[in-house]
Amino acid sequence: MLVQSIRLCARIVIFVVMAGNILGTHLKLMSFGESHGSHIGGVLEGLPSGIEINLDDIQQALDRRKPGQNSFASPRNEADKIQIISGVFEGVSTRTPIAFIIANKDQRSKDYSHLKEVYRTGHADKAYESKYGIRDHRGGGRASARETAVRVAGAGICKGLLPDVEIRAYVSSIGPFSAVSDSMPSQEVIDSSELRMIDPEASQQALAYLQKQKESGDSSGGVIHCFIDNIPSALGEPVYQKLHASLGSAMLSINAVKGVEFGAGFDSARMSGSTFYGEDESYNSGGIYGGISSGDAIHFKVAFKPISSSVMSNKPLDKEGNPVEQKVGGRHDVCVVPRAVPIVEAMARLVISDFYLLQKIHSA
Amino acid sequence: MLVQSIRLCARIVIFVVMAGNILGTHLKLMSFGESHGSHIGGVLEGLPSGIEINLDDIQQALDRRKPGQNSFASPRNEADKIQIISGVFEGVSTRTPIAFIIANKDQRSKDYSHLKEVYRTGHADKAYESKYGIRDHRGGGRASARETAVRVAGAGICKGLLPDVEIRAYVSSIGPFSAVSDSMPSQEVIDSSELRMIDPEASQQALAYLQKQKESGDSSGGVIHCFIDNIPSALGEPVYQKLHASLGSAMLSINAVKGVEFGAGFDSARMSGSTFYGEDESYNSGGIYGGISSGDAIHFKVAFKPISSSVMSNKPLDKEGNPVEQKVGGRHDVCVVPRAVPIVEAMARLVISDFYLLQKIHSA
Amino acid sequence: MLVQSIRLCARIVIFVVMAGNILGTHLKLMSFGESHGSHIGGVLEGLPSGIEINLDDIQQALDRRKPGQNSFASPRNEADKIQIISGVFEGVSTRTPIAFIIANKDQRSKDYSHLKEVYRTGHADKAYESKYGIRDHRGGGRASARETAVRVAGAGICKGLLPDVEIRAYVSSIGPFSAVSDSMPSQEVIDSSELRMIDPEASQQALAYLQKQKESGDSSGGVIHCFIDNIPSALGEPVYQKLHASLGSAMLSINAVKGVEFGAGFDSARMSGSTFYGEDESYNSGGIYGGISSGDAIHFKVAFKPISSSVMSNKPLDKEGNPVEQKVGGRHDVCVVPRAVPIVEAMARLVISDFYLLQKIHSA
Amino acid sequence: MLVQSIRLCARIVIFVVMAGNILGTHLKLMSFGESHGSHIGGVLEGLPSGIEINLDDIQQALDRRKPGQNSFASPRNEADKIQIISGVFEGVSTRTPIAFIIANKDQRSKDYSHLKEVYRTGHADKAYESKYGIRDHRGGGRASARETAVRVAGAGICKGLLPDVEIRAYVSSIGPFSAVSDSMPSQEVIDSSELRMIDPEASQQALAYLQKQKESGDSSGGVIHCFIDNIPSALGEPVYQKLHASLGSAMLSINAVKGVEFGAGFDSARMSGSTFYGEDESYNSGGIYGGISSGDAIHFKVAFKPISSSVMSNKPLDKEGNPVEQKVGGRHDVCVVPRAVPIVEAMARLVISDFYLLQKIHSA
Repeated sequence: MLVQSIRLCARIVIFVVMAGNILGTHLKLMSFGESHGSHIGGVLEGLPSGIEINLDDIQQALDRRKPGQNSFASPRNEADKIQIISGVFEGVSTRTPIAFIIANKDQRSKDYSHLKEVYRTGHADKAYESKYGIRDHRGGGRASARETAVRVAGAGICKGLLPDVEIRAYVSSIGPFSAVSDSMPSQEVIDSSELRMIDPEASQQALAYLQKQKESGDSSGGVIHCFIDNIPSALGEPVYQKLHASLGSAMLSINAVKGVEFGAGFDSARMSGSTFYGEDESYNSGGIYGGISSGDAIHFKVAFKPISSSVMSNKPLDKEGNPVEQKVGGRHDVCVVPRAVPIVEAMARLVISDFYLLQKIHSA
Repeated sequence: MLVQSIRLCARIVIFVVMAGNILGTHLKLMSFGESHGSHIGGVLEGLPSGIEINLDDIQQALDRRKPGQNSFASPRNEADKIQIISGVFEGVSTRTPIAFIIANKDQRSKDYSHLKEVYRTGHADKAYESKYGIRDHRGGGRASARETAVRVAGAGICKGLLPDVEIRAYVSSIGPFSAVSDSMPSQEVIDSSELRMIDPEASQQALAYLQKQKESGDSSGGVIHCFIDNIPSALGEPVYQKLHASLGSAMLSINAVKGVEFGAGFDSARMSGSTFYGEDESYNSGGIYGGISSGDAIHFKVAFKPISSSVMSNKPLDKEGNPVEQKVGGRHDVCVVPRAVPIVEAMARLVISDFYLLQKIHSA
Repeated sequence: MLVQSIRLCARIVIFVVMAGNILGTHLKLMSFGESHGSHIGGVLEGLPSGIEINLDDIQQALDRRKPGQNSFASPRNEADKIQIISGVFEGVSTRTPIAFIIANKDQRSKDYSHLKEVYRTGHADKAYESKYGIRDHRGGGRASARETAVRVAGAGICKGLLPDVEIRAYVSSIGPFSAVSDSMPSQEVIDSSELRMIDPEASQQALAYLQKQKESGDSSGGVIHCFIDNIPSALGEPVYQKLHASLGSAMLSINAVKGVEFGAGFDSARMSGSTFYGEDESYNSGGIYGGISSGDAIHFKVAFKPISSSVMSNKPLDKEGNPVEQKVGGRHDVCVVPRAVPIVEAMARLVISDFYLLQKIHSA
Repeated sequence: MLVQSIRLCARIVIFVVMAGNILGTHLKLMSFGESHGSHIGGVLEGLPSGIEINLDDIQQALDRRKPGQNSFASPRNEADKIQIISGVFEGVSTRTPIAFIIANKDQRSKDYSHLKEVYRTGHADKAYESKYGIRDHRGGGRASARETAVRVAGAGICKGLLPDVEIRAYVSSIGPFSAVSDSMPSQEVIDSSELRMIDPEASQQALAYLQKQKESGDSSGGVIHCFIDNIPSALGEPVYQKLHASLGSAMLSINAVKGVEFGAGFDSARMSGSTFYGEDESYNSGGIYGGISSGDAIHFKVAFKPISSSVMSNKPLDKEGNPVEQKVGGRHDVCVVPRAVPIVEAMARLVISDFYLLQKIHSA
């Protein structure tokens, strides 16, 4: 009888639902919008009142993320002008949900019209269609990295909650070229490199490498290293919401990320205990003990796979899995890692801010 | 040390947060916007793909809710034009979050400027200020019934999920005048009354009563009776999310509601078991057993207190609790109950749709 | 392919799941156990550390709930001895999840063995079977009011969080006999009545009425009125988790409840504004404004339908809906309302405690 | 006034709360119990009915996790006998919450009594005390790896939901010795190594290495590699609950884990696109595209730091940070990685099962 009555109502269409668009436990960011719709945007719920919202800072962070900043990034023009439509009054949060929208200015949807019957290799096209039954063939839809602008905007809005917490990331490697620091580098050093690397020589070599990849229609991955300084102690919710578990989940939710490690990470598996707990213990531990921040600097690394678009643009498959003749086209990055630096910083800030509010319940 | 490090970051402002803006477990409606901001709106998350979205139907429901429909409702002009900005493509849901915005056209914020230092009696002014530390003195902010337009819009968007489930409410009493049906009345009968009552004589008497209340600067409450027909069986999640518990919570979250009862409700407390379980058992039980829908019609009643605005407009208090001379003004209803009919229907649809999706996990 | 692979895994059984066993947003009570299993119990998550746990108080509350306290309650012997197995050390909460179990001593499952093919009228038997596919025919399972012992125990454990908040309920009516107070009655007055009524004459009349119902194999409903004094202001989370909406949901989740009203409740629908906002405004409003506690006393009424067991024991139906000859038997109450008094108090305490912790995030 | 009334109630103790003890969105595992309390245990909520519960299989998994299985593991005797006290009837799930308890047999709390004023380096002692204000000095409390028995038991209970999904992990490295397979190894091969490695020579070398570490009072980390075969496609909830993001969070929540990578992981950051998307694309991608399972095998690696207990037992600090003379003692592992194999498998199964149920809502 149950089955009958449900079928009665459900008879018309086979339908599917989508979850997973809310980040956070107490401070919640709900994200919406597709790459080729009219707007993307979000609602930040749970931010205390009286927090100053600096639109210039938010815009600056959005500009750091957007395409076209260097010669290896997609020239797609995303103006990314944010408009806050609720929850902010006279420059401060008014304690109600903060909704914001960003118009999609440069959609050029005709670029993608020939993709209707094609799955792009390395993209989520087939995965989305298997999951949702339908797919917005004009582009990546929700799977597009365009959605990450929402994350950057959300983090910018809540920056005033913990203004003293410094979160700074840099590109520690691109392809085979790397340069790593064991403490937070200055913003000036990072910004002096087009690729957001901290060593001029490594940056130069990586630039040459990317030029070569571009010419051969290839692409490159890389690693981002992120530091969090001046973090309050006692953040993290054992046993399943340990601070690094939630930070790790946030990082793995960023497009193209394949791995994350805290402190010494995978190297720690090769260390003896006497080495790990030696003089670099704080660095090796990454500032988190038992899932709880100690107040020491937190640091972690995030691995990005090479982007598929450029290299694979000539190898799409039709829905039966046969190669398709036509080129895919579109405007794509050779390497997204430099653009991902503000996204990594944004996700870290959203997680830290959420745990900070959770911890307020703990301490009377 | 914890306390110290937290204080370090929190030193600047005393801040507060706001929760409670998400309705639903799986199908979630996040609501945002204040009565005097630029927009109100919402994001509906969890709606399956392939559901037809009928903008005309949504607009019609919004129009039934908006002020100025009869001579006892506020003349405030809320155009309430809904704009969907994500998640819908070619008229159907595309399975991604559906964001919608409604511009606040007719704000006239100057009407409220003299309220900065005044608490309106019967309003949430003092409560909000005690809770959040600050208050948008221009009007009700989130406490304004303007927010209920978001609920009506959200329910309109998900109507195609369960098109066969009929949800219809009517005004069963206004002040001392009442007329009740023990089954779902026709829409025509309801719409033939300016007050959405089902008996012409009772409606006429109530109209005369409201006219008298208006003339004496007084107001009136009332009761709405709601039926749900063709509901699938097996909806409801015991033991804490029983169907009527969640419906009841949804109704009590509507502005001015002071009570809710299912089936025979408070009358059942006076009945003997042999009467309750007699020939009217299905009506007395209201179609829900053990917190689970049986497939029989569900019905419930919602009590609205008289609105405070008109009657109390001359009795505001200052922040020390002393009477204030000046009039409050503004544009207010004598009786909001007829306008609340589509809100009751909307909240019922949102709850039913959520439980329907939850039940899909149960039945393989 | 999706459907295929899922079917691959799901081929063996038609299965169903159960949700709805967690109460609360931050302070969570997870309830488990069936009426005829080895134990019932719960886990209280989110209680701060350092709270004194008084096992004697908890046991006393459990004893007030258990059957057999008066001649109109089921003689079933539920010893209800609580055992706390985690989260408490040397008499105080240690900040980890507090798990507790209560053994089902007197199961006598043979009483129910003849019910395998029978739906008891007025029970959730048919509803559960339609929802879950299977049913524990030995008794009510999760639908049994035995589960409410978990609620009483959970509330007892968190009592030390808000020791100054007084929550007290009494029976304001049984069948047609009622006696109501407009402020919190003393515990002594309530306890001096076997039926937990506050007027000796009304209590006497109700006792005589219940005796008559018992003799005729009938039953009775009633109303419980609950007061909350010394409540902090600012509790409640607009717009969907208003304080009375969550209290209302908690009350409606109690077995046999058909309605709930706050302050003047349904009477307010008949009042003019000038009456409602007159000298009894605080009582009429029930101490909650805009969904937020004001610090004034909160009060609400909860309506219980007459229990079906005794009156309907001779009218079970088989699964095709035909009357069954055999008697159902079992040990059942004529009127459960007096026993429900500590359950109403417990649910109120759990809700208030949860909102109190949520509000701690708001106020720095 | 808010602050005053809250202070009124909170005057007695400074208290703290604990969250983070629930894993999962729809299928929820609530974990409770401390290492030195009377019991640990959990409640599994959301498992469909009709699932066979095989207690022997669960016990076998618990036995694989428990200490004392090899000469480098702690000899502490944890009998780990599971007792299910609700939700299972005649060997199958009855659709109600499944509560289970495991008694702590061999507590020997006197071993730890000298730790009251001491923070063990590398442990969470200081972190917990900074967070919760108090600490159970008898042992790790909730921070102890003893809690992971709850995870193994929970996964064992839900194994019948997806019996065809194979999840198998092995130790791919200990210290500097490693042996990796690019497809799921047989259980026989894994079990033939005391260290759960897949190559006899590497296993032999690792054993010798651990013997050396033991003799010098040192310890070792290692890596676990996990495969998931026969997984349904379409699992995962973009954009924030991507399948690998939730798997990653689950892995990072396991004690001593410092990193996780999917498919080619950190190696992918060094690859060119043409290599990554070459003939090993499925392996490099790890079977997940856009956060959604493709049906191909999923695999990931988890890095464990060396355990601190043995190496650091002579270097505890007092609460002012000064070295303490006395030895810490206790019974500790030299290397926990082999014991962690069933924990990794259990966390993977819990996450997969949860997403499988979520996906059931998507596919009508």
